[in-house]
Amino acid sequence: MKKISLTILLLFLGFYYLIAQNSKKPNVIVIYTDDQGAGDLGCYGATDIFSPNIDKLAEDGIRFTQAYVAAPVCAPSRAALLTGNYPQRAGVPGNTSASIGSDGLPDEQYTMAELFKDNGYKTAHVGKWHLGMSEASSPNNQGFDYSFGHLRGCIDNYSHFFFWEGPNIHDLHENGKEVFYDGKYFPDVMAEKVDAFIDKNQQDPFFLFYAINMPHYPYQPTQKWKKYYADKGIEFPRSDYGAFISTIDERIGMLIDQLNSLGLREDTIIVYQSDNGYSTEMRAFNGGGSSGPYRGAKSSLFEGGIRLPTIISWKGNLPENKVSKQFLLNTDWMPTLSNLCGLENKKSAIDGIDLSSMLMNTKQKSLRTSAFWKYGSQWVVRDGKWKLIAYPKDTSHKGELDLESDALFLSNLDEDVSEMKNLASKHPEIVKSLIKKYTEWEFGSIDGVPKETKKVNHLAVETIIESTLPLPTNYKNIEVLIDGKSGYLDYSSGQWIGQEGKDLEFLIDLKKEQNIEKISCGYMQDLGNWIFKPEQISVSFSSNGKDFEGSLFLNDEENNINKNTFKGKFSIEKPFTARYLKINIKNIGVCPPTHKGAGSKAWLFIDELYIE
Amino acid sequence: MKKISLTILLLFLGFYYLIAQNSKKPNVIVIYTDDQGAGDLGCYGATDIFSPNIDKLAEDGIRFTQAYVAAPVCAPSRAALLTGNYPQRAGVPGNTSASIGSDGLPDEQYTMAELFKDNGYKTAHVGKWHLGMSEASSPNNQGFDYSFGHLRGCIDNYSHFFFWEGPNIHDLHENGKEVFYDGKYFPDVMAEKVDAFIDKNQQDPFFLFYAINMPHYPYQPTQKWKKYYADKGIEFPRSDYGAFISTIDERIGMLIDQLNSLGLREDTIIVYQSDNGYSTEMRAFNGGGSSGPYRGAKSSLFEGGIRLPTIISWKGNLPENKVSKQFLLNTDWMPTLSNLCGLENKKSAIDGIDLSSMLMNTKQKSLRTSAFWKYGSQWVVRDGKWKLIAYPKDTSHKGELDLESDALFLSNLDEDVSEMKNLASKHPEIVKSLIKKYTEWEFGSIDGVPKETKKVNHLAVETIIESTLPLPTNYKNIEVLIDGKSGYLDYSSGQWIGQEGKDLEFLIDLKKEQNIEKISCGYMQDLGNWIFKPEQISVSFSSNGKDFEGSLFLNDEENNINKNTFKGKFSIEKPFTARYLKINIKNIGVCPPTHKGAGSKAWLFIDELYIE
Repeated sequence: MKKISLTILLLFLGFYYLIAQNSKKPNVIVIYTDDQGAGDLGCYGATDIFSPNIDKLAEDGIRFTQAYVAAPVCAPSRAALLTGNYPQRAGVPGNTSASIGSDGLPDEQYTMAELFKDNGYKTAHVGKWHLGMSEASSPNNQGFDYSFGHLRGCIDNYSHFFFWEGPNIHDLHENGKEVFYDGKYFPDVMAEKVDAFIDKNQQDPFFLFYAINMPHYPYQPTQKWKKYYADKGIEFPRSDYGAFISTIDERIGMLIDQLNSLGLREDTIIVYQSDNGYSTEMRAFNGGGSSGPYRGAKSSLFEGGIRLPTIISWKGNLPENKVSKQFLLNTDWMPTLSNLCGLENKKSAIDGIDLSSMLMNTKQKSLRTSAFWKYGSQWVVRDGKWKLIAYPKDTSHKGELDLESDALFLSNLDEDVSEMKNLASKHPEIVKSLIKKYTEWEFGSIDGVPKETKKVNHLAVETIIESTLPLPTNYKNIEVLIDGKSGYLDYSSGQWIGQEGKDLEFLIDLKKEQNIEKISCGYMQDLGNWIFKPEQISVSFSSNGKDFEGSLFLNDEENNINKNTFKGKFSIEKPFTARYLKINIKNIGVCPPTHKGAGSKAWLFIDELYIE
Repeated sequence: MKKISLTILLLFLGFYYLIAQNSKKPNVIVIYTDDQGAGDLGCYGATDIFSPNIDKLAEDGIRFTQAYVAAPVCAPSRAALLTGNYPQRAGVPGNTSASIGSDGLPDEQYTMAELFKDNGYKTAHVGKWHLGMSEASSPNNQGFDYSFGHLRGCIDNYSHFFFWEGPNIHDLHENGKEVFYDGKYFPDVMAEKVDAFIDKNQQDPFFLFYAINMPHYPYQPTQKWKKYYADKGIEFPRSDYGAFISTIDERIGMLIDQLNSLGLREDTIIVYQSDNGYSTEMRAFNGGGSSGPYRGAKSSLFEGGIRLPTIISWKGNLPENKVSKQFLLNTDWMPTLSNLCGLENKKSAIDGIDLSSMLMNTKQKSLRTSAFWKYGSQWVVRDGKWKLIAYPKDTSHKGELDLESDALFLSNLDEDVSEMKNLASKHPEIVKSLIKKYTEWEFGSIDGVPKETKKVNHLAVETIIESTLPLPTNYKNIEVLIDGKSGYLDYSSGQWIGQEGKDLEFLIDLKKEQNIEKISCGYMQDLGNWIFKPEQISVSFSSNGKDFEGSLFLNDEENNINKNTFKGKFSIEKPFTARYLKINIKNIGVCPPTHKGAGSKAWLFIDELYIE
């Protein structure tokens, strides 16, 4: 042990000596790919993907097998990378809007670009931004001397029109000014801009954020690579996806050739990482990528959404041809690169950890031992080998999840990297301790912790329920309303019945006349998902199923209306006798004027209907 | 009179003599633009559009001011052009689907391309197809020796990806095989294909259908023309739209230059026409084009949707520098060109009329005196100067339309080319005679004729109605249900209350206890618009507005369920007394398995709630 530590110390000191000796600080290039899956490189085990240049980059440096991004979708992942903060602190907890002028990364955030710029670097952003459409959130205002690319989440690579819902418009900007390269292949234009920036700044230290917009849809690889994958007999959409990865790889080869020819290879730190797992969205033809051994994909907090290809290479300075199992989060790049480059950082503390010393010895114990994630209702605590997910979503569909028993999903990553076996019931003390860590985390909250769903054996359980109104396709399984169990705080868990813009109404047949004391109806509010507390819940009753009388209005047990996300209950205690109950749940109709969805249809969600 | 007729006869004979003399038949180029407005060329009065080459084409031939297309949207307009038949007979009454393999122009249709091919011509289609995605409906199967372009309704002009809802895919085909010109500007690729086809076939007679996909959205003019319009201070989206027209014009100039340089200009008949009025769709930024003096735009049967820029030029053979007021429909091009070229046509009769003789003298009385249109619930009879529209829609929003008094809209086009003054009430005998013509037309039907909406003064008129369920934004004006008037057979007329996938329920307060004899509820079925007869209509009643009793089920008065589009009524005769009525109209929920929307939400529409 001692011997190893000493070696590290010597290496560490030697390394700082090196920095001090060299009058010019090293250049930094952070290559950030878009929706690239965990298993989608040759060096990460893909046998059907041709990526020789990226594989060579890994050979020339350290390839990580436990490197994470702080969010499973684009904007918050990028915000974490650029600020060193969890997306929650960075002010970008979810994807940002495509509307002109809309907010994104807040002005107050001190970015990696600002840090490098303040230390005399020339800074550039080339590629996708997706961190806001306002002046304040723009690349030039966030520390980049130079910026070229698109501001929204995706573009057609030839017309450079925003690739989403219409009316789609041209989205290509250079230093805040719209520029036109009609018909020119965007990856080639990016490569040219990168080439020119490096060429121009070869004497100065530079920091380049090369935000490659591939393999994000639309899948538009070059014909050369399309043919290559077609000839290999690979099927669509994997063929186009793979060809798109090779399209990236080829351009990274060009970049490294340039660095070599300018003699800058050993003066340049290159970081390579994907922003989140591969997409299973409709516009990605529901797939094409692969998470390799992991479960989950884009939007999921299983490893497949967040544990991604990650490489650092600094030839002649950092170890080469190493595979590291060290734990790393993309928030750590900012302090780590800062230290590698010997920058002065006068700004306040961030969430990221300086891992520079650990890079010198990939056998060294990881300096980072835990991390947190929060995206929608999902959250994660990873502490050592243990990983606890709340309300997991498996966008890769690798296995079934039980809504209740898997609401808290515990894995031992040392033994089950695929997270297929939930150990939560086997290790309740570990679950408890990880929940404690989560609730103590600045952005954690006890409200988000799944409660044990005790089955209440009320009068409606195992009776007959029907909806008197049509229900949305995803919310037709109304038996969940009388299963004795209250759904957890996730509208999409399958335990809730929802309706958009309209009311819900259910008829319950208790099978015989019953003496009823109390009626309750659980509901959810989740303003971020346009879900509002019901306006009113009323019950009428009948003995014959035809003639209904009474309109009992239930009272809200809580007064939480201003809280963003919570579960509540309407109820009434009144003794009466009936066999049939008609329960009407009134939707507020449209989102209120203060809400971002103002005027659009509001959702309501309920579970459970307790008849006691 | 005699003298003029003789002149025409001589010209006519002379003309045939000319054909007979010339061993080689003339070439034919039909240029068909996409969503170009009636007023969007210099020669049609636009002062802000630069179109010198098309204006010159008009100078070198005949420019029509009363030339029509047979439908106000793409696919049926093209079907009429290519078959010489009304879209109804051509088997393409509306736009065709973008789904791979889906039907379009039926195999049985004998097209203009087949006619020319059967007469020894080389035939080519270059540009947009939008007449089906099946093998049978493909250009090569419909008479084109050569075909190049996109099969769906619109593409990105650089990536050649279908420009609509996702997942969008590449749509560029040459003779049925997918081809790639990644990044190459589609108008330039079209121009090259046209150039090559003409060059190759300069010795043979050729027929070219040049289906230019501009100025259809996405608006992607060249930078040269963008700059030109920006410099002129023209505002978006007119600027991009105008620049797109100039982009067309420039390429037509290139085509004519080629014909001149090959010495083919006098051997080539050129027809120019737009397929329908300019688009006011969201993806077209709600406009950009202009209908000039006319009312209406794309999708409307007012003149702006169907009366469009149309030119024929055959230098040295047809009159030059003429403006013709002669009445022409795009179905007429097939027989007219057939005759101009002296083709033999062994196939059966079509709707189009041979107008070739009238072209020799633009002062000659029009050979066509009437025409019919039918698109959705709109239909038109034009007979001489009179034009009757049923259920008019003004997509150009040039004026208000009264739902009832304008359900039949009569114009005297000689005096009111803008169709702003409805003369229907002033000339009931003309309305009657035009309705008679319509119902006698093969594709007309008495069902589609607006009936006079007599106000029935039943018990609910001027009482109080409320919906117990939220209603869609467009269908909140529920007072129409108790205004004493039954809506006409057009769900979008404003007279109907609709609901998608869900039920409707209304509470009527008659203001005092009333003796009720009969209750009826009008409904509509319109399968093409996914509107189905209600599954069930029931009424319960109350004296105090709280305790409702009874569930009277209304009976359908008709048994029309297999009819595509009709109005029906549910009713019940039963004497009772009540002040409050709750009327529930049950939606079938989802479209039935046999319907093209199978499994998707079904609509229901009702008007009026009669309480007698």
